Amino acid sequence: MQGSTAPPLIIESLQGDFDMTFRAGVVGAAGFAGIEAVRLLLGHPDFELVCATSDANAGVRIDEMYPALRGSTALEFTKNADADLGSLDVAFLAVPHTAAMSVAPALIDAGTVVIDLSADFRLKDPDVYAKWYSTPHTEVALLEKSAFGLPEIKGEEIRRAAGLYASGESVLVACAGCYPTATSLAAAPALIGNLVKEDALIVADAISGVTGAGKRACERTHFCFANENLEAYGVTTHRHTPEIEQILEIPNRLVFTPHLAPLNRGLLSTVTIPIDAGLAQGIATTEDFVSLYKDFYKASPFVCVLDAGKQPRTASVIGTNNAQIGLSYNSQLGVLVAVCAIDNLGKGAAGQAVQCANIVFGLPQAAGLSNIAKAI
Amino acid sequence: MQGSTAPPLIIESLQGDFDMTFRAGVVGAAGFAGIEAVRLLLGHPDFELVCATSDANAGVRIDEMYPALRGSTALEFTKNADADLGSLDVAFLAVPHTAAMSVAPALIDAGTVVIDLSADFRLKDPDVYAKWYSTPHTEVALLEKSAFGLPEIKGEEIRRAAGLYASGESVLVACAGCYPTATSLAAAPALIGNLVKEDALIVADAISGVTGAGKRACERTHFCFANENLEAYGVTTHRHTPEIEQILEIPNRLVFTPHLAPLNRGLLSTVTIPIDAGLAQGIATTEDFVSLYKDFYKASPFVCVLDAGKQPRTASVIGTNNAQIGLSYNSQLGVLVAVCAIDNLGKGAAGQAVQCANIVFGLPQAAGLSNIAKAI
Amino acid sequence: MQGSTAPPLIIESLQGDFDMTFRAGVVGAAGFAGIEAVRLLLGHPDFELVCATSDANAGVRIDEMYPALRGSTALEFTKNADADLGSLDVAFLAVPHTAAMSVAPALIDAGTVVIDLSADFRLKDPDVYAKWYSTPHTEVALLEKSAFGLPEIKGEEIRRAAGLYASGESVLVACAGCYPTATSLAAAPALIGNLVKEDALIVADAISGVTGAGKRACERTHFCFANENLEAYGVTTHRHTPEIEQILEIPNRLVFTPHLAPLNRGLLSTVTIPIDAGLAQGIATTEDFVSLYKDFYKASPFVCVLDAGKQPRTASVIGTNNAQIGLSYNSQLGVLVAVCAIDNLGKGAAGQAVQCANIVFGLPQAAGLSNIAKAI
Amino acid sequence: MQGSTAPPLIIESLQGDFDMTFRAGVVGAAGFAGIEAVRLLLGHPDFELVCATSDANAGVRIDEMYPALRGSTALEFTKNADADLGSLDVAFLAVPHTAAMSVAPALIDAGTVVIDLSADFRLKDPDVYAKWYSTPHTEVALLEKSAFGLPEIKGEEIRRAAGLYASGESVLVACAGCYPTATSLAAAPALIGNLVKEDALIVADAISGVTGAGKRACERTHFCFANENLEAYGVTTHRHTPEIEQILEIPNRLVFTPHLAPLNRGLLSTVTIPIDAGLAQGIATTEDFVSLYKDFYKASPFVCVLDAGKQPRTASVIGTNNAQIGLSYNSQLGVLVAVCAIDNLGKGAAGQAVQCANIVFGLPQAAGLSNIAKAI
Repeated sequence: MQGSTAPPLIIESLQGDFDMTFRAGVVGAAGFAGIEAVRLLLGHPDFELVCATSDANAGVRIDEMYPALRGSTALEFTKNADADLGSLDVAFLAVPHTAAMSVAPALIDAGTVVIDLSADFRLKDPDVYAKWYSTPHTEVALLEKSAFGLPEIKGEEIRRAAGLYASGESVLVACAGCYPTATSLAAAPALIGNLVKEDALIVADAISGVTGAGKRACERTHFCFANENLEAYGVTTHRHTPEIEQILEIPNRLVFTPHLAPLNRGLLSTVTIPIDAGLAQGIATTEDFVSLYKDFYKASPFVCVLDAGKQPRTASVIGTNNAQIGLSYNSQLGVLVAVCAIDNLGKGAAGQAVQCANIVFGLPQAAGLSNIAKAI
Repeated sequence: MQGSTAPPLIIESLQGDFDMTFRAGVVGAAGFAGIEAVRLLLGHPDFELVCATSDANAGVRIDEMYPALRGSTALEFTKNADADLGSLDVAFLAVPHTAAMSVAPALIDAGTVVIDLSADFRLKDPDVYAKWYSTPHTEVALLEKSAFGLPEIKGEEIRRAAGLYASGESVLVACAGCYPTATSLAAAPALIGNLVKEDALIVADAISGVTGAGKRACERTHFCFANENLEAYGVTTHRHTPEIEQILEIPNRLVFTPHLAPLNRGLLSTVTIPIDAGLAQGIATTEDFVSLYKDFYKASPFVCVLDAGKQPRTASVIGTNNAQIGLSYNSQLGVLVAVCAIDNLGKGAAGQAVQCANIVFGLPQAAGLSNIAKAI
Repeated sequence: MQGSTAPPLIIESLQGDFDMTFRAGVVGAAGFAGIEAVRLLLGHPDFELVCATSDANAGVRIDEMYPALRGSTALEFTKNADADLGSLDVAFLAVPHTAAMSVAPALIDAGTVVIDLSADFRLKDPDVYAKWYSTPHTEVALLEKSAFGLPEIKGEEIRRAAGLYASGESVLVACAGCYPTATSLAAAPALIGNLVKEDALIVADAISGVTGAGKRACERTHFCFANENLEAYGVTTHRHTPEIEQILEIPNRLVFTPHLAPLNRGLLSTVTIPIDAGLAQGIATTEDFVSLYKDFYKASPFVCVLDAGKQPRTASVIGTNNAQIGLSYNSQLGVLVAVCAIDNLGKGAAGQAVQCANIVFGLPQAAGLSNIAKAI
Repeated sequence: MQGSTAPPLIIESLQGDFDMTFRAGVVGAAGFAGIEAVRLLLGHPDFELVCATSDANAGVRIDEMYPALRGSTALEFTKNADADLGSLDVAFLAVPHTAAMSVAPALIDAGTVVIDLSADFRLKDPDVYAKWYSTPHTEVALLEKSAFGLPEIKGEEIRRAAGLYASGESVLVACAGCYPTATSLAAAPALIGNLVKEDALIVADAISGVTGAGKRACERTHFCFANENLEAYGVTTHRHTPEIEQILEIPNRLVFTPHLAPLNRGLLSTVTIPIDAGLAQGIATTEDFVSLYKDFYKASPFVCVLDAGKQPRTASVIGTNNAQIGLSYNSQLGVLVAVCAIDNLGKGAAGQAVQCANIVFGLPQAAGLSNIAKAI
């Protein structure tokens, strides 16, 4: 696959040609983001899932551990070391941070496209990484070449990655985290549109379902502690803070507070954005902001900006790669409140990873991502 | 479409040919079963959803009421009276009982295949219907011609319906209810295999998520009453009792108790079946029953019989048309406990309806029903 | 009871004397706040519940509608018009806004202490009321005499009310709303301590369980719509905004966004407060703020300020009148994030009402409010 | 306390006398049943909680681990070995099975009343214990002297224990398990009333909230696996089967299937009981059974038999020691369906333990157990 110089449009025309199916693997496939990547790849018309690794569950059939997948795959989890990862066209890394850094180089050397769902290559400044993750970054050269995976906002990075792939060069995409995705989608049009009060603090209060806390069984994820409870966590210290500041280019201006609520999937980020009335000439009502946002996202198949008066429901996007955004502008306070709903495992993790891979491989962005959310 | 004499195989070969897409409508589309039918039809390769009726919501865009469908359809709900139902190839009736009886005849006269999700045509004996539904059956002639829609058990009826369709004759399929589907799938192989103690009572205790209680907002469906609560209802009086007795041919032998639990979708039926050791020669262990059940369902793409020691989880089948069955045989008591999990809106309603329509129209059973459940 | 000149301490000494039990009634007792008031009064040592009104449910036994109360009361709901409300020592009004305005005057005239859980007497400025509630205030004179019921912050008002009662004068307490209570408890010590950046916006993002949406069965409160969903509502327009601004004396400085999450009870308010380092001399760490808050609430039996590094869980306060507060100060941003957890029906409604009544009647604040939350 | 010969009535009259408070401890207090016992004892007027042991959490303040208890206790968990258990008047054992067997003898020797919440002393026949718990019973002598703790059905045993205590003799009460309590309360009046078809199978399908699965964090108790899911478990092999058969004296006649549903607390047992019309002369309607059951439980303050047509809701009994029972008799099938709702941690564990202790110590049965369930 590597080495092709075919531009995206021509590759698109090959869709459905069985011989052109790309060989895909998921590294760290037994976790929640990993198994969602597995699910999406099993239903993807252009990627063929050929391996799913999990050192802890090697030898176990995937559908034994996750019986929802019965009838969809006969694969077993394999050990990382046993998987012929280098033979893959694309590897999705759903391993914890630091593990991705150690797995990626060999894949890159083998010419495999790496789509990293971990945090290891998200922060452009290795010192910032070292500070927030309490460990030095060991792959700075690779970091510098990586593309950030949030196509609606960092389109130029992912397009550049597609170009590299088309030129036969190595590609690593660091997909945005769940909170950064929702928060940035909510805030980017106002900030990029230069409507925000200079130096003003941006406040993002976000709420996540429990899949966001991961598969590890502990008190936090115990049903009886999580159910019928609300709590904030990582207050003023959550690692997604510098990532959001980087995406939105608002260094030292973000107050980010994540919360846990009793549901499986779903993430809602409510972002309070002080608007500079002087800068925002002619943008004075909620409807104006809705127009601006709709225009900003007009080419994005996954982002839906709701009309004034509507608020997004996380239930509307579960199981999909969609985001829905609601806007309310209070002219008296001069504040825009933008609320974005995503599926933390979809657009917040595996969906976005597949979307990024689609773009890199010249496929339609929505290939394999067109399932319809349950209406109820 | 009607009038074609093409046998199923040839129709199958036409799949994907746009001109051969069948025109489908959902009558009573705003309810939970109706909107799930809408969702399935929107993603179906061979049916095109051309109308969705709801007298109460006529003029409202479907995706305004159910924002999960944004981007998937621009249709509005229409009034029944305004819809050109007669122009449809197939109409899915998701209206309350008695309403289906009044809608069906005109559709049948117009040559439209009717797939009825209501209870109106399920009970073969109109007197039994009158007794349990407290209203006389007004379409006895149509009732006599109808086919019962539970393909894994009543395959001959649905195949006959397909034959009628192929011959250009009218077709009405009365799809099995949610509890009858799960309960019958759990019990049928033992009963049809003639292993059950003669005249012994069969006890089915089933649990449903709250979508089973329907869309009407009332105390029963109020979050704060349903959440953190378990209760039985319709004890010894639930209308699905005679339907299950009819399917399994066990008149006056079923004790059926449904329960409500705090989840959206999912239905689990636990059926306790006294086995006659004399009849069940050579079938003496759970493994033996598993083999028998696997054999019984070997041609059914939607039914998965789990190995001994495994129990089904409703979460594994949500959003799909799948059923999973777990078996435990207690030889000391001479009792088989068979547990079946389905999605009450999937195999228990809209999924089964689409499956039945697929068969009638000569399509693969699983057309439009191949989505993969979320693993988590 | 009225007309006594006994100061609080002496009344306290009479606790447990059966003859001194005060006659209490709940007006609008069938709603969620009303029935929680009923529950608390049934277990209160000093108030005797003698009537519970509900026009819609008159004649129904309370424990028929709410079977959790079986064995605790044999009372029936009565019509407002049929209840001898004037014979009560105290009436708890749990009716919708505008209804309280119409019920209160006659009670006051009859010498009954009115503890109002509605919004009718919360906003001191009738024009503000008229603006936010879209109806003129019809009892301005009574409004002027009313006391605001949030004892930890507006202690002087409730103490004044106690004095009026002791002098035989009429008393109306307008209890703070659920969001205002949690938000104000989180912000008050910093604001009253004069540590907050002048004119800076305060952002309060709060999350409530579904009991906060009330007993009315509608789509919002339907289990299947509320479950597995997160959403914001009333964004920039919620009526609790002016109430919080009034309590905290921050006119036109509050951005308040409430959210709904899938649990029955519980309310968490996360308040982001810009600190003025110049004003906050010597208060430079989270620990410093914890000390300040602990000192502020040292006389309050219901407010628990958690040590640095701890965050409150709503589950810890369910069924009680307690509030728990967690604090995090980010010195780089100069921002304090204060999170307060309450039970919206407890400290956010009926618990606070009983607490206010206790103070007015000279009882210990915690009388009847000492139940221990379930640890799990 | 031990050695007193005061009969119950006189001890009752001492209630509230501080000097007569009994010293109580909870062994294994950090688990769910243990911490519920802690909560009940903290609010009990006659028992003083003086120690709470947990080897795994020794040195941790109880309210640090369970912040709902802040303000209610300053105790720390202690190691079993460090606790002066022998100085207790009563020890509640909330340790896993086999651990109770090893802890109890020393307590008994020290004259401490042992209230065991584990399974170790429930099965009267040590061989049955050995078979179902896969370990020999090591305290057969103590087993023989133990009383079974299910006062509504085994009143004579618990009264005998009270007599022993009054005589200064040692007392061990083996409290019934959660499923056995609900199932037996549902079935006992019909069986003890001799109305049941001889040798007929009794089918009990029960559903429990996740606290029933215990505090250990594992896949089963992980929020994301338990939420939005229903499943059966331990089918035909659950250890509560022989316990129920023993209580009801129906050896080898019970088919018991427990299920897990997504809620914290609550247990519902639906018991299908074939009635012998010949034996049940004059008991031919649901109303007749309701009368019979009401009469059976007329002296039991905790059991409420609902009128015909009503079904119990687990939400109505949460946090209490109450049980509610609904009955439906189908005369055509000759079957009684009895449904019992309890709080698995209340009447199913800690509440029942406190009730048993109350009886043993001559206190009113309901001492410390009179809290009112939340109506919503």
